[in-house]
Amino acid sequence: MRVSYDELKSELKRVLISRGFEPEAAEIGASIIADNSRDGVPSHGLNRFPAIVKFIDEGAINPHRHPVKLNGVGALEQWDGQLGFGPINASIAMDRAIELAGQYGLGCVALKNTNHWLRGGTYGLRAADAGCIGICMTNTFPNMPPWGGTEKRIGNNPFIIAIPQKSGEHVLLDMAQSQFSFGKLQTYSLAGKKLPVTGGYDKDGNLTDDPNAILDGGEVLPTDMQVRIMRMLI
Amino acid sequence: MRVSYDELKSELKRVLISRGFEPEAAEIGASIIADNSRDGVPSHGLNRFPAIVKFIDEGAINPHRHPVKLNGVGALEQWDGQLGFGPINASIAMDRAIELAGQYGLGCVALKNTNHWLRGGTYGLRAADAGCIGICMTNTFPNMPPWGGTEKRIGNNPFIIAIPQKSGEHVLLDMAQSQFSFGKLQTYSLAGKKLPVTGGYDKDGNLTDDPNAILDGGEVLPTDMQVRIMRMLI
Repeated sequence: MRVSYDELKSELKRVLISRGFEPEAAEIGASIIADNSRDGVPSHGLNRFPAIVKFIDEGAINPHRHPVKLNGVGALEQWDGQLGFGPINASIAMDRAIELAGQYGLGCVALKNTNHWLRGGTYGLRAADAGCIGICMTNTFPNMPPWGGTEKRIGNNPFIIAIPQKSGEHVLLDMAQSQFSFGKLQTYSLAGKKLPVTGGYDKDGNLTDDPNAILDGGEVLPTDMQVRIMRMLI
Repeated sequence: MRVSYDELKSELKRVLISRGFEPEAAEIGASIIADNSRDGVPSHGLNRFPAIVKFIDEGAINPHRHPVKLNGVGALEQWDGQLGFGPINASIAMDRAIELAGQYGLGCVALKNTNHWLRGGTYGLRAADAGCIGICMTNTFPNMPPWGGTEKRIGNNPFIIAIPQKSGEHVLLDMAQSQFSFGKLQTYSLAGKKLPVTGGYDKDGNLTDDPNAILDGGEVLPTDMQVRIMRMLI
């Protein structure tokens, strides 16, 4: 079944409004999710929506809350996301960083009490659209062994650098620090495909290219610097 | 032969003064070189001094020039190093970034017309001593193939993050983006030792742990994320 972008976005928006979002916030959230699927990043788009709805219903995402500034010193600010929707919180934080960069040449916003922002590249491109170099990071829990290790001690946190181009075809680096993000493992799993290269260990500690074996009690491998540099058409 | 730190530093200073440096600048330069050797980074200390003297004599390092600010917007500034001595230029640039961070919360200084800064960690630790997180990068020429490639297309630029600790034992990441920096290859070569792991290709394209085979027309390998995190006693 093929669903048009407009239909997908309007359905996502309808559901977000039904869960308590204001129409404007629902428009932003639905756009980010639909754009990620449209832009060839299915691992961080529509596939996450059932979990998002579940998190709203469980209270882990609060559709009524908006981020507030806690503290600031010049170009550096701390914000509290108040458990609002991650992609909206991250968009507001990046917009504020862009504003600070306009004022000070640089801007940095740290955000706490938030949740999964989906594709990190969204916010890098948001900076690039505003003519800024965007650098974005999040934390995560220790879900990966360091190279040569077997115990999960470090995170596979995403790392994003976006560099604006006048043409609008910005340069974007958007990578997990694992060989494959967990979203990418799920994409291969859903497609019934093996990974193109070894991606981690199975639960018995054997290297494997089977995404299910990694997801089912195994461990991801750290990235081999096979960075995925994408030139994206906005 | 064992040479004391004080004797080493005073000899370095004497030679720098003999080549035209003012005593204060010679003190800074000699300290950085001697500290690097003392702190267990022989690849970026005394061993570089003959090349430094050669560069001074050839005019690639000018002992009489000081960096000047070209441009600035708030916390972001461009400086021209005027081919002064790299470690002194880099120290002045970091001191200015620290000053900007005090004023704006963040500070960033870009420096052109400079030369090798020796150990990048020097400037990260300088930031940490001032209570700042220090992030330092330089450019280089394309001297390394990307993973899976054979042609030199990317640089092995150093990457530094220093995080201050109240104890003074700052956390320091100071790494080349190649498996081994060229300075480290020279250290193993001088010691007549093999590398502990494969470090690059020889001139015929074979993987090797022989530093001389890599230096003699071969190529370094990109890092395998074997980052070298050092806790340093200042």
